[in-house]
Amino acid sequence: MTEPRWPVIEVFGPTVQGEGAEAGLPCYFIRFGGCDYRCKWCDSMYAVEPAEVRANAQSLGVADLISLLTGLEGNPEWIVLSGGNPALLELGTLVHNLQVAEFKVAVETQGSRWRPWLAGVDRLTVSPKPPSSGMATAGHALALSRFLTAANDAGVEPALKIVVADAEDLEWAKGILTTYRAAEKHLSVCTPQPGEGHWESTAALEHQPPESILRLEVADRYRWLCEQVAADPDLAGVRVLPQLHVIAWGSARGV
Amino acid sequence: MTEPRWPVIEVFGPTVQGEGAEAGLPCYFIRFGGCDYRCKWCDSMYAVEPAEVRANAQSLGVADLISLLTGLEGNPEWIVLSGGNPALLELGTLVHNLQVAEFKVAVETQGSRWRPWLAGVDRLTVSPKPPSSGMATAGHALALSRFLTAANDAGVEPALKIVVADAEDLEWAKGILTTYRAAEKHLSVCTPQPGEGHWESTAALEHQPPESILRLEVADRYRWLCEQVAADPDLAGVRVLPQLHVIAWGSARGV
Repeated sequence: MTEPRWPVIEVFGPTVQGEGAEAGLPCYFIRFGGCDYRCKWCDSMYAVEPAEVRANAQSLGVADLISLLTGLEGNPEWIVLSGGNPALLELGTLVHNLQVAEFKVAVETQGSRWRPWLAGVDRLTVSPKPPSSGMATAGHALALSRFLTAANDAGVEPALKIVVADAEDLEWAKGILTTYRAAEKHLSVCTPQPGEGHWESTAALEHQPPESILRLEVADRYRWLCEQVAADPDLAGVRVLPQLHVIAWGSARGV
Repeated sequence: MTEPRWPVIEVFGPTVQGEGAEAGLPCYFIRFGGCDYRCKWCDSMYAVEPAEVRANAQSLGVADLISLLTGLEGNPEWIVLSGGNPALLELGTLVHNLQVAEFKVAVETQGSRWRPWLAGVDRLTVSPKPPSSGMATAGHALALSRFLTAANDAGVEPALKIVVADAEDLEWAKGILTTYRAAEKHLSVCTPQPGEGHWESTAALEHQPPESILRLEVADRYRWLCEQVAADPDLAGVRVLPQLHVIAWGSARGV
């Protein structure tokens, strides 16, 4: 039997996880290519579009990946398997080897396709995509329900994390968060394209570096989302975060 | 026996906790007056300086506080008892009543004085003060050690959270975080006074609103701290966060 290999877009770190349950914790990232969604605001389309995946991905196995990780600085507890949608792949062997090497393994997926290997990771985060993504279809809603049932049948209670760009997204997210049980519930501010918003703090910033404008737009959106969530009795136990890597590094890739 | 009353500076919320283990979660705050420390960068000196505490504090009991909380919007799970140093007071009765009302109670203290009632809260965070505070004396180090021993004897493993303003603080924090066990370990970027730093993103921002400058200064400092922590094998499991309320609201008070 040949050793499995997967399409890997990038291996990087040490950095700090910017989102979800491990937000703020040092980690390495492995980003896999391929996705069944096309979210309008996707920040890693280079790991999604088939032409880009074909152009950018290397086909790597466990030994290749361990060797790449060994060459990185630092010694984080966590390793994040990201995408694209890593749940399109069969990563059980990799997860096992990373855990043998004493990593804690975190996976984030939109919850479109259940895989038994997901039950073996140290933290599973499901991030259903709201209306602003263009992916909030009835079919995807059914797939999410089936995914969460399968997870529960496998003894796993995932964390839920939903990106929110606007009031419609928030209302939608509230429906999800009040319908499903979850180990943790997170709302994450959608990071705009630089210059996309016309938010209070950035009105006079046309001549500033785009990274400064982006960080302030995220900060303004974060304030808005905090105010909405804090005042809403139905969202009492929901954690609200900005994308911390955007606060730190703007839209730079590979950090 | 008369009902106990305490010096209360402000009761506010709903807002989102900006720091520590509850970062990003909706909460109410009760801020008590009085502190045994005088940190150089204290952001709530109005709850510290005796003259200001005398001028600003109301003497309130359990019924007063419950009544004020009932008048607030929202329905957060968490209530944060803050200061000043709330561990200077005897708050056991209040904690009990808040828990009966189904709040989870979080307390943050610098770890200078143990109180048995601290064993009864839902999350205790100890925030030892680093050299930049002017409070990192040998006496305070001994007090911290005694505090943590008393906590452990009471069956409590607090979270540790240390504010970091510079490289010296980080080295000091590393000593604390590698010496003591803790339920969670956090590093939090010290928020500068607006205009205090001369950080990359703010060099050209003299004519921008001070809140924008402050948020970008915090973002630059956060990047620096993330880079330091991610690359340091001794800080593998330490969570790094900016003060999220500063990202959201700048230095506004009462949010």
